[in-house]
Amino acid sequence: MSAQSAHEAAPGDTAGDAMPDAMADASAELAAIRLSIDNIDAALVHMLAERFKFTQKVGRLKAASGMPPSDPERERAQIARLRQIALEAQLDPAFAEKWFNFVVAEVIHHHEQLATGAIATSSSAPSSAPGDAS
Amino acid sequence: MSAQSAHEAAPGDTAGDAMPDAMADASAELAAIRLSIDNIDAALVHMLAERFKFTQKVGRLKAASGMPPSDPERERAQIARLRQIALEAQLDPAFAEKWFNFVVAEVIHHHEQLATGAIATSSSAPSSAPGDAS
Repeated sequence: MSAQSAHEAAPGDTAGDAMPDAMADASAELAAIRLSIDNIDAALVHMLAERFKFTQKVGRLKAASGMPPSDPERERAQIARLRQIALEAQLDPAFAEKWFNFVVAEVIHHHEQLATGAIATSSSAPSSAPGDAS
Repeated sequence: MSAQSAHEAAPGDTAGDAMPDAMADASAELAAIRLSIDNIDAALVHMLAERFKFTQKVGRLKAASGMPPSDPERERAQIARLRQIALEAQLDPAFAEKWFNFVVAEVIHHHEQLATGAIATSSSAPSSAPGDAS
């Protein structure tokens, strides 16, 4: 199942060497899984970057039209939807909700700064900060 | 730029109606952006679900072979890499790091439970909880 370790068993090896080989196998398997995790993390960061482009746009729109930075009804609907998607994908819905609330909190903080003028509202403003949750 | 509102300006409308129209335009634009945010969120939750399948595998592997639940050197390398990816994607690297630490904390908590036997280590264990960060 895992990649063969560099630590090959010599002919005649007995149970005495089984543990080091098992450890080498576990290390090789861990390294392989980590490559997949790294790929997924790169995808997640890119998706987050794309999400924040949209939420920054929402933040500027809300600030320019005087809408409040947060929208509790929208957030409730988002949480219910994401919990359902998590369930179907076999992810703990409680984790999905906690994760979403973390992202939203960052974003509302940014909106409040936009609303109070602490951040420029023009589209040429630096785009490095998170935008809007909802 | 935004979708035309249902609230069309009648011929001869003057500045007096500009504000309601602008608000309707802003609402229509907000609704359109939110559809994109919803699509991205669904993708993010699915990617997180996939990430946790791998980290659960790591958690079981570490528990079975006696490796510690956390790996500070691996985490430092992950953070440096994700900050770089965030920069290139125009996402605030500080947010990317904060987000990563949030995910890792959840996952290490899960590993510790695996290591202490609070969670079954067999692959038939319920897969609803987060797995391993690193």
